[in-house]
Amino acid sequence: MSRDALFRQAIAASGHTFDGEIKVGGNYVPLARDGNTIYLSGQIPRIGNEVVVRGRAGSDVTLAQAQVAAKICALRALALLQRSLGSLDRIRTLLRITVYVHCTQDFTQHSEVADAASDLLHSILGSAGAHSRTSVGVYQLPKNATVELDLIAAVD
Amino acid sequence: MSRDALFRQAIAASGHTFDGEIKVGGNYVPLARDGNTIYLSGQIPRIGNEVVVRGRAGSDVTLAQAQVAAKICALRALALLQRSLGSLDRIRTLLRITVYVHCTQDFTQHSEVADAASDLLHSILGSAGAHSRTSVGVYQLPKNATVELDLIAAVD
Amino acid sequence: MSRDALFRQAIAASGHTFDGEIKVGGNYVPLARDGNTIYLSGQIPRIGNEVVVRGRAGSDVTLAQAQVAAKICALRALALLQRSLGSLDRIRTLLRITVYVHCTQDFTQHSEVADAASDLLHSILGSAGAHSRTSVGVYQLPKNATVELDLIAAVD
Repeated sequence: MSRDALFRQAIAASGHTFDGEIKVGGNYVPLARDGNTIYLSGQIPRIGNEVVVRGRAGSDVTLAQAQVAAKICALRALALLQRSLGSLDRIRTLLRITVYVHCTQDFTQHSEVADAASDLLHSILGSAGAHSRTSVGVYQLPKNATVELDLIAAVD
Repeated sequence: MSRDALFRQAIAASGHTFDGEIKVGGNYVPLARDGNTIYLSGQIPRIGNEVVVRGRAGSDVTLAQAQVAAKICALRALALLQRSLGSLDRIRTLLRITVYVHCTQDFTQHSEVADAASDLLHSILGSAGAHSRTSVGVYQLPKNATVELDLIAAVD
Repeated sequence: MSRDALFRQAIAASGHTFDGEIKVGGNYVPLARDGNTIYLSGQIPRIGNEVVVRGRAGSDVTLAQAQVAAKICALRALALLQRSLGSLDRIRTLLRITVYVHCTQDFTQHSEVADAASDLLHSILGSAGAHSRTSVGVYQLPKNATVELDLIAAVD
């Protein structure tokens, strides 16, 4: 199956749609490109106007819910890349993802949250989805989101 | 008006000067360059030896004060780029800014803080000031600063 | 002395070995490369299966211990680069390191923690070890680690 077909399937499985405008407020852009390198702005688990997973992992939000949040961030990232490039086939390789998890002081499963994003990216992009990764636990995130994810990708 | 003139005007409006040495302590550099890509070290709102906006956004520090901090970080970033490149005209495009906001557990306006930096960069660099952006809420920052900003830029 | 010899010496001085497998769990890679740019995944102070410096800088962990953690992260980063490149001589320049310090609400010596990593990188790589740097204080880190460090490097 093509990457774009796998992506459609993953979106369907998520129960959400990413067809609408992906909102950006302010004087910045969803993705900036220099040559073959694309820098994608931090994505929170927003569907339309609503942030669908909010609160602190480890208290308000379970690990499983934080993983859903990470998946939605990754789907948004792919939606933006697909829209900009025409097809996910034009991704040569992901280079770096950074996963910020809004968590309690005792929550230490940031890698497990990030795994949900890494698994989704790998399932759709295959070996081009290989990426370096950093995951950290932060104190808050915009709009009380549970997860924020940004990435750098090399494209053809 | 040229970017350098707009920058002089923005500095004057800030009420600060950025002419002195921009201090770097330790074995690192304010900016590292590879080919046409420049990586700028994290900037806090320091003027000379003093960090002028300190404390936690949401309690010690208001949103408006945090926005002032973000602007000073952006001005410092531009001062370093101008000094290294000779002129801001040599910036082809900003690629990524990351804005770390030292905040309370309930503060969720990180994007609004980052907007102050994005607006300033856009007002001086115009379309070359377009950038991808990530803003997060952290627990502390060096020297109790309220904001830290780093960036990646493409230059000619 | 060659960089690789200096690195062996620094490892010996640390009292640890970095010969074993450096574990990566999940669908990501320790380093991703595009052209001459390498992105290294976030490193925590893990030796084999054990994270050797855990807890919050400023309470559980002293500044000196956090600096040890930062050094181990940097040694791990170099071990991964050496393994991938064959020799540290192939590093043209470090471009960016980001140092995340898991700290108390009043701990403000993130730069001093990061200095330990910067000093080590400089002592082994010389002028090629120059790098831009961002250090921030975060609320938690994977596996309760005290420090996490990632980097971007240009290689030949």
